[in-house]
Amino acid sequence: MLKLNRILPAVLLAAAGTALAYNPGTYRAEYPGQNGMVPVTVTFSKNKIEKIEIGENKETIGIGQTAVKKLPGRIRQYQSLGVDRVSGATVSSVAILQAVANCVEQAGGDVSSMLKPVRARQVHTRKTLSSDLVVIGGGAAGMIAAINASQQGLKVILLEKQEFLGGASSICGGVVDTEGSAAQRALGEKTDTPTKFAFDLMANGQQKNDLPGLTFYAENLGKSIDWVVSQGVQLDMKKGFAFRAEHKTPRVIPLLGGCPRYAQTLREILGKSRTRVMLSTRATDLITRNGAVTGVKAKSSDGAAYTIHSKAVLLATGGYGYNKEMLQGDLKSALYYGPVSSTGDGHKMAEKVGAAMQLMEYGKIYPQGIESSPGIAKSTLQGNNAAYDNSGILVDLKGRRVVNEKGTGHAILSVLLKQPKHTLFLVMDQPSFEAFRSVSANNGISQTEIDQWLKNNGSQAPIFIRGETLKEAADRAGIDSKSLSETVSRYNAFVKNGKDEDFQRSARFMKKTVSEKGPYYIVEQKPRFATTMGGVVLDTSLHVLDKSGKPIPHLYAAGEVGNSVHGTDSAPGANVGWGITSGKSVSDVIVKEIRR
Amino acid sequence: MLKLNRILPAVLLAAAGTALAYNPGTYRAEYPGQNGMVPVTVTFSKNKIEKIEIGENKETIGIGQTAVKKLPGRIRQYQSLGVDRVSGATVSSVAILQAVANCVEQAGGDVSSMLKPVRARQVHTRKTLSSDLVVIGGGAAGMIAAINASQQGLKVILLEKQEFLGGASSICGGVVDTEGSAAQRALGEKTDTPTKFAFDLMANGQQKNDLPGLTFYAENLGKSIDWVVSQGVQLDMKKGFAFRAEHKTPRVIPLLGGCPRYAQTLREILGKSRTRVMLSTRATDLITRNGAVTGVKAKSSDGAAYTIHSKAVLLATGGYGYNKEMLQGDLKSALYYGPVSSTGDGHKMAEKVGAAMQLMEYGKIYPQGIESSPGIAKSTLQGNNAAYDNSGILVDLKGRRVVNEKGTGHAILSVLLKQPKHTLFLVMDQPSFEAFRSVSANNGISQTEIDQWLKNNGSQAPIFIRGETLKEAADRAGIDSKSLSETVSRYNAFVKNGKDEDFQRSARFMKKTVSEKGPYYIVEQKPRFATTMGGVVLDTSLHVLDKSGKPIPHLYAAGEVGNSVHGTDSAPGANVGWGITSGKSVSDVIVKEIRR
Repeated sequence: MLKLNRILPAVLLAAAGTALAYNPGTYRAEYPGQNGMVPVTVTFSKNKIEKIEIGENKETIGIGQTAVKKLPGRIRQYQSLGVDRVSGATVSSVAILQAVANCVEQAGGDVSSMLKPVRARQVHTRKTLSSDLVVIGGGAAGMIAAINASQQGLKVILLEKQEFLGGASSICGGVVDTEGSAAQRALGEKTDTPTKFAFDLMANGQQKNDLPGLTFYAENLGKSIDWVVSQGVQLDMKKGFAFRAEHKTPRVIPLLGGCPRYAQTLREILGKSRTRVMLSTRATDLITRNGAVTGVKAKSSDGAAYTIHSKAVLLATGGYGYNKEMLQGDLKSALYYGPVSSTGDGHKMAEKVGAAMQLMEYGKIYPQGIESSPGIAKSTLQGNNAAYDNSGILVDLKGRRVVNEKGTGHAILSVLLKQPKHTLFLVMDQPSFEAFRSVSANNGISQTEIDQWLKNNGSQAPIFIRGETLKEAADRAGIDSKSLSETVSRYNAFVKNGKDEDFQRSARFMKKTVSEKGPYYIVEQKPRFATTMGGVVLDTSLHVLDKSGKPIPHLYAAGEVGNSVHGTDSAPGANVGWGITSGKSVSDVIVKEIRR
Repeated sequence: MLKLNRILPAVLLAAAGTALAYNPGTYRAEYPGQNGMVPVTVTFSKNKIEKIEIGENKETIGIGQTAVKKLPGRIRQYQSLGVDRVSGATVSSVAILQAVANCVEQAGGDVSSMLKPVRARQVHTRKTLSSDLVVIGGGAAGMIAAINASQQGLKVILLEKQEFLGGASSICGGVVDTEGSAAQRALGEKTDTPTKFAFDLMANGQQKNDLPGLTFYAENLGKSIDWVVSQGVQLDMKKGFAFRAEHKTPRVIPLLGGCPRYAQTLREILGKSRTRVMLSTRATDLITRNGAVTGVKAKSSDGAAYTIHSKAVLLATGGYGYNKEMLQGDLKSALYYGPVSSTGDGHKMAEKVGAAMQLMEYGKIYPQGIESSPGIAKSTLQGNNAAYDNSGILVDLKGRRVVNEKGTGHAILSVLLKQPKHTLFLVMDQPSFEAFRSVSANNGISQTEIDQWLKNNGSQAPIFIRGETLKEAADRAGIDSKSLSETVSRYNAFVKNGKDEDFQRSARFMKKTVSEKGPYYIVEQKPRFATTMGGVVLDTSLHVLDKSGKPIPHLYAAGEVGNSVHGTDSAPGANVGWGITSGKSVSDVIVKEIRR
């Protein structure tokens, strides 16, 4: 089988022949996607792919499933494997293309002749539309704002540059803050207040939070949660409160079915609303007159250009984590694991019309990243915990432990950010590594990937090293092996005494000593982030403010582009809560201000 | 000399003769006022007081000085000592009356015949006025709002029920918070933000703060400070930042000349503004139409009734500490030391028109009160510190120490509030008591008062006891004397070892042992408060909200009636800062909303 997911980028540019000839028949193949194997059945006539069926699979609803839905048609339309993948659903797209390519090979076709990039025919029409409200961005905040505003009678256009809706909401942490909601009260917590909630977020955000925006958030959170629940979003009331140290009052509740279901519910509600959803259509500029925003310019992927006049424009464009040029501070060197659509479009459009920006150097950074592709992270959080339940330890380049491996993310991160190249190393014996690998497989890192990385053995990112001896592994990783050996002995002594004298790792997580027998494994640990905190400056109605602190007329913000409400970091459940609250309540403000 | 300040209330109702006969001439007398002796020179003809002159004195500008200015004329007008005292300046008024009474006696007059209460002739006119803005209450917040609104062209009427302006601002703590001001930056602090300020106030207020109101406060504090400074209020920039643990960022700056000068500056600026100030005129009701406030009903002390139509009404009516019926929780049993004008007028008027109220059970309670008259406190804070610099200790009824005497006010208070009758006892030997008495004299408690209280020897409040032996003093106070004796021995042992093993009183404040020689003194210690925290519910523009959370149209609040911004307690400098910010910025909101 061709390694399509690796070679495509290079091969795509190669000239390709056009002769298509197949042994007619039906062939089957499968390829690993995001969440397991993607099986494909392709029927060939003598010179044509006649039919592509994708079998049962677990690709993510709304994202990978967009590829499942769209790619077969595209491949047949162009009789090509060089069709556009669904951006943001690359893994699913590649799985389908790989499986189809395999069927082509089975049918005796010439895959290499089919890789030339093809694009949909471009139109060059110019269209003018008008609306009450243009929502830019179809993540949770944007979908919610569109649903609410259109339900209240506004004429709403929602622009989404991707082929699917959902934005970052599909990959959220799966819990939401509910201060002041009926759900929170139903679970028995009746003492929570906006002020308590705001206080916890300020403590977590180093008191750099956008205070007017945070106040709007705290004051409107409860009723916004009630509203999305009334619309059909379900909380997992059986699981009840998820306790998180950042919240001093119980208010974090899991989303039933997690984020994929949450995002899908919003897509379905939006679909039933009267919102005009324009997918694959990217907003490029805000239109202004005398300093007031009067509309949006947008471009569709088929080349059509739109001028949309509107009474109000809501930026719900997400973050900027996937735009290297916009990253500052520790974000510059951290790996990214968020959606590819987070390119700061809204930040840039807002700045162009004079908006003030803040906290651009901050993101929600975690310490357990591996560089799965250049600049991009996958998280080993769950794998690490499995390793620590055995005898995994975390060391620096000098082979020393530097932190309690089971400490808070904040604590580990602050040590990590002081390391050369912001890298620490997870050191494991065979049992620890087996636990790490097996848990990782259920958490976004396949065993196939890990095997491939181990084969590279540290020659390229991500660094996954195997050595028959500790010295061999350490040498390969560039870690001081003598010191590492002493560290392991010292750690093993701590395990035997039930007391970590260096970093107070709890005895609960020190049940096994590091084996004296090889092999040993070393895995890199780097900072990773998905969510950015920088954004526009808000007033207490979520108007976007200019540099003198005055609202830019008719311009509003919701979701991650207004993430400075969190300060330097966001608390658990607070991003989902903010998406809901800002989306719902800013659209209430817009309805009221348009009607005034 | 008659003890006029004690006997007046009883005698006032007695029938009095009318025969006035004096030995003509000029007589002099003096009597202790608020801040020292008040000397009076009275010239009598055969049957008339012809002239009253008050000599050099230190009575408080704007308060006691109102009595100095008004009482001589009143006494002459009615040839009586039964004239109205200046409410809120009782001590100064009584000093003048006592000194004049003394002169009457010297001139052979009959004081008792002159004590019958007289009142100004009552008129029964009804007047209708109209304005853009009625400000109810002439404390700092009210004065500032009136100044700012009238400077911006609004027609402003300010109603003040007292004979003088100033409210609680004349007795403030003497420092002000300055987050975001030019003054703060000039002193080198440039990292402060509204969020940091709000966070500190929330930490101090147990996160019960009114979040929208607090946000308005934090966002507008800096520019409001700049504005009052531009108007002439002076900060003591030479002294620079006063460090207070409640504020994590330097932002507390002393007022130059303290509160009396601050209040007087505001009176002077107000005097130059076009505001119509109506003194001795009490607002009685808000006028509403269809739920919106359209004006105020008021009554003057001369009996005139006013109906004032207005586009906006600002409640700047202060607190409710002097209204027993409104006190809840720990406030019920705490002694009061604030202005007599704080009777919750604004709270009651707001409630009548449907306003929601909050935090009514909270006040800024301190632990060092003595009951100088029924329900009323004076503070021994400075005297206590002088005693603790010697060998004073604080004990409970069982004669045991219960707290670090030099701990924070919060810590001592929380112990105090657990005591029976909320009382602790300061136990002093002779040197400690002498230090206590001499320092108290400069801090609002005269040596004359203390001598009188010691004569009462615990038979009535305040409890000031002297005993030749510790046992005698303890028995008199109802304290377990055996236990107290053991406590003193134990404390003396701690002093000798330089270590308080019970409550960690710092060795710095344990330099002297309690003398083995009598006499000993015991002084009560009770909770006291001046400032109440309960009030109306605010939005982020300081509109007063009804019980459903909607603004009551045209009704705004500033100052202590909106004190819930502080939560359960106010941080140092935060009340003065709130008065300034709410007064200045709410009037900006009002100007804008009236012009819209």
